[in-house]
Amino acid sequence: MSPAPAVAALDWGTTRLRAWLLDGSGKVLAERRGDDGLITAREKGFAKVLEGHLAAMGAPETLPVIICGMAGSRQGWIEAPYVTVPAPIGAILRGAARVDGASRDIRIVPGLAQRLTEAPDVMRGEETQLAGAGLPAKGRHLVCMPGTHSKWVAVADGAVEGFGTWPTGELFSVLATHSILKHSLGEHPAPVAADSPFFRQWCERALGEGGDVTSKLFAIRAAGLLQDLQPADAAACLSGLLIGGEIASARRRYGASDAPVALVASGALATLYGSALGFAGLAFRTVDADEAVRAGLVEAARENGMIGGAS
Amino acid sequence: MSPAPAVAALDWGTTRLRAWLLDGSGKVLAERRGDDGLITAREKGFAKVLEGHLAAMGAPETLPVIICGMAGSRQGWIEAPYVTVPAPIGAILRGAARVDGASRDIRIVPGLAQRLTEAPDVMRGEETQLAGAGLPAKGRHLVCMPGTHSKWVAVADGAVEGFGTWPTGELFSVLATHSILKHSLGEHPAPVAADSPFFRQWCERALGEGGDVTSKLFAIRAAGLLQDLQPADAAACLSGLLIGGEIASARRRYGASDAPVALVASGALATLYGSALGFAGLAFRTVDADEAVRAGLVEAARENGMIGGAS
Repeated sequence: MSPAPAVAALDWGTTRLRAWLLDGSGKVLAERRGDDGLITAREKGFAKVLEGHLAAMGAPETLPVIICGMAGSRQGWIEAPYVTVPAPIGAILRGAARVDGASRDIRIVPGLAQRLTEAPDVMRGEETQLAGAGLPAKGRHLVCMPGTHSKWVAVADGAVEGFGTWPTGELFSVLATHSILKHSLGEHPAPVAADSPFFRQWCERALGEGGDVTSKLFAIRAAGLLQDLQPADAAACLSGLLIGGEIASARRRYGASDAPVALVASGALATLYGSALGFAGLAFRTVDADEAVRAGLVEAARENGMIGGAS
Repeated sequence: MSPAPAVAALDWGTTRLRAWLLDGSGKVLAERRGDDGLITAREKGFAKVLEGHLAAMGAPETLPVIICGMAGSRQGWIEAPYVTVPAPIGAILRGAARVDGASRDIRIVPGLAQRLTEAPDVMRGEETQLAGAGLPAKGRHLVCMPGTHSKWVAVADGAVEGFGTWPTGELFSVLATHSILKHSLGEHPAPVAADSPFFRQWCERALGEGGDVTSKLFAIRAAGLLQDLQPADAAACLSGLLIGGEIASARRRYGASDAPVALVASGALATLYGSALGFAGLAFRTVDADEAVRAGLVEAARENGMIGGAS
């Protein structure tokens, strides 16, 4: 007989969804991935999409469900209003919004808002990864969550001090597809290898420039004309430049960490950012992004009394 | 009887062409503008396009022709090979390449190449504006030529020391059209007013960040969510951020100028950059971009012995 799940956990984004059945310790008993993110679920109905995935995993009818991500945005299922930072991570999780009128206990973790005049910012989903990143309860810690819109978070004694967004993944994609650099990178840029000497060179150049990236973009084009830079290498240059610029800028904004930077990432992105953090001379430990979001969801379920036990 | 032209002058770019008949002092006797830039002329034939415009202006059959711009690139009429900087401006102009086999004297001003391993760069067309910008023969001077690919040039005692490209206009267009900021700016962003408080505010923020722009892009989106920023104002934010970032970065790279920065620009762009240079506390004088390119072409014709008189 298979063990009974304690909670169903969902990371429900704009275009994708991941769902798990977890036991009380966060162990995965079943898993589903779907393309029915917010955009699709708005048409089909969130409850219907959710119950379909739960049924497919054999979830009991009364199993509680904890959700993070864009499903809690104004365009989502119900709005889980932003928690304003600074805020303790436990308090953020306890702000989960309950879906009324559902046949089971369903709650959505709120996003975070940084309501600073000069640096307004928002996140939804990453706050749950953050909660599951295994940060020490004491001291000042930096967390790097790379992606389309990379987030850096400064945490002090278990509370979010502040955070910032660097749209590094989006910039790569937009510049590779729609700017003059498309001629440099070619039509189908190959994945960038973290051991590419071009990735390292341009990353190191960017690290020395405090986050100034725009002065070097056209140099990639010029290197094609003057230095015979090849398309695959041009993609590595652009990736190194943007990631190096992100790290330099975040380091300038947030300063030092009392412990290695927590790099919350998976796969190729984890490798690229790991290399780049190394070039920057920053100690880091990698936390698998999938494991972090699941651990954060379990923590949220516990903080909201949906499952038993102390954290 | 109208005065006789001394030379026909063309600024022949990728998509557009401007042609003038000029007397020996650079006075405009006739003018034409066309959409038959390099892309069109490659199909129709450069000689045919040129002669069509000359005939329409009533140019004599033996009138010499001086050309600058992408017509001198490898994809153009004939290649006028890059002159490598550092180089005296006079020597650059004298490097004009002659079109063989033409029925008249036709020469194309070369572009510039900066063959630095760490900062490769190229320009074509702007070197002629630079020659016509009326820089003093002595001292160290900075020239700002804003546009799709803004150029900043450091000139010392009449020689180009070095230059850089900031793709500010292209970034604005690509981000406004293809990034998440399209939701912030709306479908048809209005022209940005130089006296917009949002333009000023975001320009000043960028000026304080040494050219780090990417850390603030997403803040425009967040300001829409948290601070009710409106689309027209969001466009002013993005413009201010990018122009301020360009100026901060160029100032960091090139340091001080012995005289006001020469801002080679026309119309709305001249006004926006003038405001931004003012916010940066940089003295500047505006040189009309059209007048500068004509003056540079006359100077090139003179340096190549196509018309008489000392410069």
